[in-house]
Amino acid sequence: ERDKYENNEKAGVVTGLAWTSVGGDILFIESILSKGKGMLSITGNLGKVMKESAQIALEYIKANADELKIDPKMFENYNIHIHVPEGATPKDGPSAGITMLTSLVSTLTQRKVKANLAMTGEITLRGKVLPVGGIKEKILAAKRANIKEIILSEQNLKDINDIKESYLKGLTFHYVKEMKEVIDLALLKQKVKNAKDLTVK
Amino acid sequence: ERDKYENNEKAGVVTGLAWTSVGGDILFIESILSKGKGMLSITGNLGKVMKESAQIALEYIKANADELKIDPKMFENYNIHIHVPEGATPKDGPSAGITMLTSLVSTLTQRKVKANLAMTGEITLRGKVLPVGGIKEKILAAKRANIKEIILSEQNLKDINDIKESYLKGLTFHYVKEMKEVIDLALLKQKVKNAKDLTVK
Amino acid sequence: ERDKYENNEKAGVVTGLAWTSVGGDILFIESILSKGKGMLSITGNLGKVMKESAQIALEYIKANADELKIDPKMFENYNIHIHVPEGATPKDGPSAGITMLTSLVSTLTQRKVKANLAMTGEITLRGKVLPVGGIKEKILAAKRANIKEIILSEQNLKDINDIKESYLKGLTFHYVKEMKEVIDLALLKQKVKNAKDLTVK
Amino acid sequence: ERDKYENNEKAGVVTGLAWTSVGGDILFIESILSKGKGMLSITGNLGKVMKESAQIALEYIKANADELKIDPKMFENYNIHIHVPEGATPKDGPSAGITMLTSLVSTLTQRKVKANLAMTGEITLRGKVLPVGGIKEKILAAKRANIKEIILSEQNLKDINDIKESYLKGLTFHYVKEMKEVIDLALLKQKVKNAKDLTVK
Amino acid sequence: ERDKYENNEKAGVVTGLAWTSVGGDILFIESILSKGKGMLSITGNLGKVMKESAQIALEYIKANADELKIDPKMFENYNIHIHVPEGATPKDGPSAGITMLTSLVSTLTQRKVKANLAMTGEITLRGKVLPVGGIKEKILAAKRANIKEIILSEQNLKDINDIKESYLKGLTFHYVKEMKEVIDLALLKQKVKNAKDLTVK
Amino acid sequence: ERDKYENNEKAGVVTGLAWTSVGGDILFIESILSKGKGMLSITGNLGKVMKESAQIALEYIKANADELKIDPKMFENYNIHIHVPEGATPKDGPSAGITMLTSLVSTLTQRKVKANLAMTGEITLRGKVLPVGGIKEKILAAKRANIKEIILSEQNLKDINDIKESYLKGLTFHYVKEMKEVIDLALLKQKVKNAKDLTVK
Ligand SMILES: [Ca+2]
Ligand SMILES: [Ca+2]
Ligand SMILES: [Ca+2]
Ligand SMILES: [Ca+2]
Ligand SMILES: [Ca+2]
Ligand SMILES: [Ca+2]
Ligand SMILES: [Ca+2]
Ligand SMILES: [Ca+2]
Ligand SMILES: [Ca+2]
Ligand SMILES: [Ca+2]
Ligand SMILES: [Ca+2]
Ligand SMILES: [Ca+2]
Repeated sequence: ERDKYENNEKAGVVTGLAWTSVGGDILFIESILSKGKGMLSITGNLGKVMKESAQIALEYIKANADELKIDPKMFENYNIHIHVPEGATPKDGPSAGITMLTSLVSTLTQRKVKANLAMTGEITLRGKVLPVGGIKEKILAAKRANIKEIILSEQNLKDINDIKESYLKGLTFHYVKEMKEVIDLALLKQKVKNAKDLTVK
Repeated sequence: ERDKYENNEKAGVVTGLAWTSVGGDILFIESILSKGKGMLSITGNLGKVMKESAQIALEYIKANADELKIDPKMFENYNIHIHVPEGATPKDGPSAGITMLTSLVSTLTQRKVKANLAMTGEITLRGKVLPVGGIKEKILAAKRANIKEIILSEQNLKDINDIKESYLKGLTFHYVKEMKEVIDLALLKQKVKNAKDLTVK
Repeated sequence: ERDKYENNEKAGVVTGLAWTSVGGDILFIESILSKGKGMLSITGNLGKVMKESAQIALEYIKANADELKIDPKMFENYNIHIHVPEGATPKDGPSAGITMLTSLVSTLTQRKVKANLAMTGEITLRGKVLPVGGIKEKILAAKRANIKEIILSEQNLKDINDIKESYLKGLTFHYVKEMKEVIDLALLKQKVKNAKDLTVK
Repeated sequence: ERDKYENNEKAGVVTGLAWTSVGGDILFIESILSKGKGMLSITGNLGKVMKESAQIALEYIKANADELKIDPKMFENYNIHIHVPEGATPKDGPSAGITMLTSLVSTLTQRKVKANLAMTGEITLRGKVLPVGGIKEKILAAKRANIKEIILSEQNLKDINDIKESYLKGLTFHYVKEMKEVIDLALLKQKVKNAKDLTVK
Repeated sequence: ERDKYENNEKAGVVTGLAWTSVGGDILFIESILSKGKGMLSITGNLGKVMKESAQIALEYIKANADELKIDPKMFENYNIHIHVPEGATPKDGPSAGITMLTSLVSTLTQRKVKANLAMTGEITLRGKVLPVGGIKEKILAAKRANIKEIILSEQNLKDINDIKESYLKGLTFHYVKEMKEVIDLALLKQKVKNAKDLTVK
Repeated sequence: ERDKYENNEKAGVVTGLAWTSVGGDILFIESILSKGKGMLSITGNLGKVMKESAQIALEYIKANADELKIDPKMFENYNIHIHVPEGATPKDGPSAGITMLTSLVSTLTQRKVKANLAMTGEITLRGKVLPVGGIKEKILAAKRANIKEIILSEQNLKDINDIKESYLKGLTFHYVKEMKEVIDLALLKQKVKNAKDLTVK
């Protein structure tokens, strides 16, 4: 059965859009930190390409820590765990890339994720957001799940233009070129309530 | 053949509900600590998703050690081993998540598990308990095994409502949203008899 | 061809009962220590579940070292190797669990194993011995091999009751609930002749 | 769908030529550094041979660091991540070798990559560039993608001679024997704008 | 084609007997030491069981270093490599066990191997030599290869008794129970010419 | 297409003879060193047996460093990478053994490889060169590639004798028994031009 958007107050929980054999759905990317030496672990019955997305997201963040206002010492003092719930469902593909990136940045900065927002898009090391497939099914699932805003690659604009106007009602689309735009759109300046103090002394 | 509830006085032994090709059954999740450097090992002829549940449970506990009143130093001084008996039976799926979480918290705190209680539910990093399948078969197995109370995701309420009233007689259901509710329901304040002194000096 | 009981004077050699496609047989579980840092290695053409039994046995011993009178420092100063001879025969299943446990305790304490004794049973982390299959074939093999006493889970009592009385003549059965009973029954107080001095200084 | 050349100002982004079951295409090799101990990680849904190309490129650079004006201390102080976007497409073969080599040298020196340039060729440890297949399809894709200059092994000259003149219009070809020629042709003396200071103190 | 016995003056080269799909043959087990930290590496296109034999042989030697007059410090200061030539032929099974054991002891002590000797037999941790299959084919191969003496498990005596007397002419058989008998029979007191000085200072 | 001999001035590049499904060919074995802790990495789309050859060659060199005039400290201060070009072609088998050995010794000593020389033969730990298959096809390929001298196992003499005289014209054969003969034949006393200073201080 299909998921609904959760007005989640927690850092690191970001809503993505998935396209499965039974149609579109939303999914949640979750991430947390624990004390450690910078290991990345990934769960959720994910295929190789989706695991690579998590790895790419983390490498990108490490290489651009300054711009993202993340203390590089965090990567030597915390382990990072990324999970994509509903373990019974195998998941794969690169389209959760920007969702994973946003989840990691939120966890590392404790910045709050914008409400009623979902996203789908592949990430690259050069910072560009690439288009993904299954846009129509994903949009329908987003509406059903009470999503109000969606972030997409600008190269997916043509896919939106192919969708019947009435289906798009009530949805605002943000077309992005760069991964930094995603972070700016998705994460509030404001920290989550009860933000963890992750400062490395 | 089917198992019976054991009035177990040991920390770390928690009763889960399983759904196999030959119907429902109860299963026991066991965990113990040994001196070490924080390695997690998992046995019991488990598939990938069930092993991931153990990993998620441990990461969640590490990230929420304060709230769970667990000294984070424990994770650097003990190895943790999780086992699910009946090695001849392959087991998989995410539904033992809350049972594994409860087992680990009991082992790490030496808190006693409530008697005649069983549970089934998927865990997430954001602390939410997700619904699982096979509820009817699991409930019948629980009754047969002398279980009195069952913890489930509130999203499994509809599955209970589909079951004939008479089958539910003698069972109390606890519908939960959050993983912390599971811990509060399942673990007594009281420690087990002969609780181990796991304090890290 | 079938093996015969060996009146073995060595620590760590324990007789188990196996059930293969060509009927029952006895098998020997062997273990030895070498200087090292606590690695466990396992050989003998074993399947995943049988390897897990060795891992469970060792974790159980580590967690209960005090009760078993084993100096926990041993686990940081010795490697442990478990072997099950007849490498040409693939072996699997959980039924060698108590045999492996007994072998490890004998090796770690240098206590002598009782003569003409064999055993079969699955182990758990909570210390309970679980029943196993193929009891009839195993009993016949034990007699043929000159075994006099057999340790079984009390839940295998019904399987013994199904066997024709005459087959059981000359055999003494010990039905156990707990793994500690196995150790008490199988290992003598007395050390083996030429016991190794494994004390960690 | 097919990619277009991007006038990319970033270090480490180099355009290669690929030949897939649906014809030729350009692809981007991306690489970045993060603080670490010299680990190489590789993503992009790559097969064994393409991963080996990345490894060979890095080993060649390490062994020839002096000639390439790269401080060997960098390899002990940074991890290197290579990614080939479009994770949904499996990729393999040795032909991205020179592209990977150029990407790594650009990242390690922060030298700018020449504009509107693409390349294809296998690398060796002895520094020789080997010819690759699918040249015709790759050339057509390069034109479509707005590429102006192409680097190839001199042993691929005969493949270019087989292509109809009109298809080659607007393209300049550089036939190389040695990997050092590739670096000299592809990387400007000039550093990228906002070049990172990667000096190891 | 079939091998001939080599009157080898090198430590660590021991002749075994193999039984393949094309009949019997002799094979050579080779081992050498290099400075290191006790790693065991194994080559020769070997299957799992034959690799386990090498591991068992080494563990046995480590646990019985005193009796074998081997300084246990050697295992922390040298790596050991075992190779079985003719890489084009896959090899498996436990029957090279005593040959591997003898090779390792010869390498570690630099004791010379007896001339014109071959052997076949499975090893155990308790020191017992187990019988193996293909005896007839192995014996014929040994004769052809100019072998004069053969070491076998005493449980293979019946297999020799089944072979036509004339085939056995010119061969001396040594039937052993214990692995120590193998070492005593196969290794001379005398060291090889140009024995390496492996003393750990 | 087939390769030609390259009059290569670089250390570590040695010409081997390969026998593939499309006939014989020459191949190049390349090796280089980079600062490190003695890791061996191997690329070139090689199968298990060919990778084992590289491992055997290195172990042999380590164990015989004195005779080969190689400072054993090199193995703790450099990583070694072996590559066999033409990644698109899967390669396997033991016949590149002597070529790998020669490549490694050349790299470690910076000795020049004799011009117009190729070789094929399996290596062993005891230093003996074993015969290999496909000799006729390999010889034809060597001629075509402008090879003048060929090193072979003396046990391949009979294969050469089976080849029509006229095919052998212009080729000199060196039949060897021992791996040391290969080194003496293949490597000049003279170092390569611009030999690297690999001395470990
Ligand atoms: Ca869902
Ligand atoms: Ca997504
Ligand atoms: Ca059961
Ligand atoms: Ca459960
Ligand atoms: Ca047997
Ligand atoms: Ca048993
Ligand atoms: Ca593309
Ligand atoms: Ca390319
Ligand atoms: Ca042979
Ligand atoms: Ca043998
Ligand atoms: Ca070729
Ligand atoms: Ca060769």
